[in-house]
Amino acid sequence: MTTENDQENIDRISTALLANDLDALLCSLPSHVLLLTGYEPVIGDTVALFTRSDGVYLLIPEDEAEMAEETSTANRVTFKPASLERITNSKKAIAPHLQALLTRLRMEHARVGFELYSGQHSASYLSQYRYGDSLVSIVAGEFPSVRIMSADQLLHRLCSVKTKQQVQRMRISCNLAETAFERAAKSWQIGMSEPEVADSFQSAYGRAAAEQKIPRTTSHFFCMSGPNAEKAYAAFAMTRCRKICEGDTVMIHCNSNVNGYWTDITRTYIRGDLSPRHTEMMKAINEARSVGIDTIAPGVAASKVDAKVRDVLTKYGFGEAFKHATGHGVGFGPASHNAIPRIHPKSSDVLEQGMTFNIEPAIYLEGFGGIRHCDVMALHERGTEILTDFQSSEKDLCLPS
Amino acid sequence: MTTENDQENIDRISTALLANDLDALLCSLPSHVLLLTGYEPVIGDTVALFTRSDGVYLLIPEDEAEMAEETSTANRVTFKPASLERITNSKKAIAPHLQALLTRLRMEHARVGFELYSGQHSASYLSQYRYGDSLVSIVAGEFPSVRIMSADQLLHRLCSVKTKQQVQRMRISCNLAETAFERAAKSWQIGMSEPEVADSFQSAYGRAAAEQKIPRTTSHFFCMSGPNAEKAYAAFAMTRCRKICEGDTVMIHCNSNVNGYWTDITRTYIRGDLSPRHTEMMKAINEARSVGIDTIAPGVAASKVDAKVRDVLTKYGFGEAFKHATGHGVGFGPASHNAIPRIHPKSSDVLEQGMTFNIEPAIYLEGFGGIRHCDVMALHERGTEILTDFQSSEKDLCLPS
Repeated sequence: MTTENDQENIDRISTALLANDLDALLCSLPSHVLLLTGYEPVIGDTVALFTRSDGVYLLIPEDEAEMAEETSTANRVTFKPASLERITNSKKAIAPHLQALLTRLRMEHARVGFELYSGQHSASYLSQYRYGDSLVSIVAGEFPSVRIMSADQLLHRLCSVKTKQQVQRMRISCNLAETAFERAAKSWQIGMSEPEVADSFQSAYGRAAAEQKIPRTTSHFFCMSGPNAEKAYAAFAMTRCRKICEGDTVMIHCNSNVNGYWTDITRTYIRGDLSPRHTEMMKAINEARSVGIDTIAPGVAASKVDAKVRDVLTKYGFGEAFKHATGHGVGFGPASHNAIPRIHPKSSDVLEQGMTFNIEPAIYLEGFGGIRHCDVMALHERGTEILTDFQSSEKDLCLPS
Repeated sequence: MTTENDQENIDRISTALLANDLDALLCSLPSHVLLLTGYEPVIGDTVALFTRSDGVYLLIPEDEAEMAEETSTANRVTFKPASLERITNSKKAIAPHLQALLTRLRMEHARVGFELYSGQHSASYLSQYRYGDSLVSIVAGEFPSVRIMSADQLLHRLCSVKTKQQVQRMRISCNLAETAFERAAKSWQIGMSEPEVADSFQSAYGRAAAEQKIPRTTSHFFCMSGPNAEKAYAAFAMTRCRKICEGDTVMIHCNSNVNGYWTDITRTYIRGDLSPRHTEMMKAINEARSVGIDTIAPGVAASKVDAKVRDVLTKYGFGEAFKHATGHGVGFGPASHNAIPRIHPKSSDVLEQGMTFNIEPAIYLEGFGGIRHCDVMALHERGTEILTDFQSSEKDLCLPS
């Protein structure tokens, strides 16, 4: 990937800083470093400093510096979080570099926004470093006149809207997942276990990533069938050891990412003849999905989209079986139900151009199975783009005819 | 899995609380909840309260409660972190339950240890909730007389030593990974790409987990070959798009977990005839590994183990090419170089019975390849148990003859 400067992003964040009376943002959560610089850190000890008038900086461990060049144009300052000469850690190792940078940029009296909140964060690696409060301590200890401000709400809002470059990166991520769905949907069979089915999707994804020479990607495919699909409204997806039977609803859920841009996709399959009940469920989901998508536009209340989707499912008698909200923000993270826009009955969010989110109408019906169809959307000036507008196989449930 | 009470763990933690003048520990990081209760949370909004004299409690979201029963005997209090009736979050949802529990246990004046520090934490799911400071706020807001203490050092130490039940759970985790290595080591070929090779190990792992009916498991297999193996001393492993050539050193690195107990395993392979240089590297690694293992015993300085391993590699001329420490604690997490015992030249740690850690002699040599052999060890009274004492194929490098 050749990196181009995302001037739209720099302008957008600079404008937001001005409006919030801030000179800079100092972040270390990988999704926020991605937002500010275009690079998603691996270990999590990279720090991004975004200044309103003096550029964007990555304080980055030596062994990630080269990788950052692939996706970010930010200035880089490297540090060494481990050494054979002494026992050290990222907090100690980054402190002098961060302090020197702030001095060089004359930020002794700056108003700096920090991450101070609790919340849901995507995993950038299997083991991650978290600074907690220590970034604040490093700055406040050396620069008592720096104004420490909470940037939580600001970051939350900034993450909800994507630039054209960011949407394009999400498109690459969604397209790769789509390839995996298309290939693997044909290969699984009745009698396979859930882990085997999930693995066939995972393998298809891995092969497609290798073919397309996309190195920086992870994917998580889950298979939930029969009674497990009926309970798939939990806050997490989980593959269990069950074998797939004829007539099962087989839900494949995917959260994958390329360079830190996440997908959130569900498709549901049945092999064999559909019962009238299943046909009815499928029809309800398809109609709910269409009505939901038709409602999306800049300026529309997110709660209205939820209401329209819920009304269709209620009309078919499945209102109670739709146990969660219609959607939430997706992109810098996969699965936080509180990511803006919250497409929820009680949401106060309003849809804006540039927002990316999922729409996931679902029916969880004890004794009959679970059906969910989850797509990722991008809202443009000209209308809604379905980033995952694919049909996995002719026998899919829940796809518009 | 049928859960048995781990009385050894309860006694051990209770004794440590008494010695540290604490009445209780209140933790939410998944690895610490696992330590205190035997259950590793998925999303990360579960809270564990371990009291010295009034039992162990899990405050757990409804959709994880049943799962916790599989591995933990702690008392459970459930809460609902999402709802269609209002926009809420885990912090708001847990607060009244936590406050009620503290009141019921008459903890208004208790001395409670919290997690306050920065550090490296394993990912329990692809997206995770973190309370940050908010648990302290919830408690301090309602109970101004509760003494908030940092339990960071205490938790760090407690995590380094395992009970018999915990070692047994690590054994299960290591054995599953071993099965994957044994099966997949035979299947890969020259000409395959790194993602294809990694995927073959990943698939073998998934199939073995399904056969053994182990649902709660994740695995991360990485393939690093040729020049990528030469640079595999970074703080993270990464599979790239390279194709495997004849004569390459092919490093397979695995971090997997079952029910929250992590492995940290590396094997290195070559297909075809070995060059004299490769034979020399292999011999050095094998000897370093043996000498290291022979040095391990309760009461031995961790730095001495590092010195012995380093001395062997230096004797063969590979001292400079061994670019990291010999090992670190493994179990509740996979990959923190600061987990006790730090088997590092400057470590002040002393090996103790019950400690689990890796030993990973390695040679990273530009132009010749990279070889690492990483095993997980458990230190018993009777001696060292190698939890990953397997040979993956007859053509493996770095295995004792």
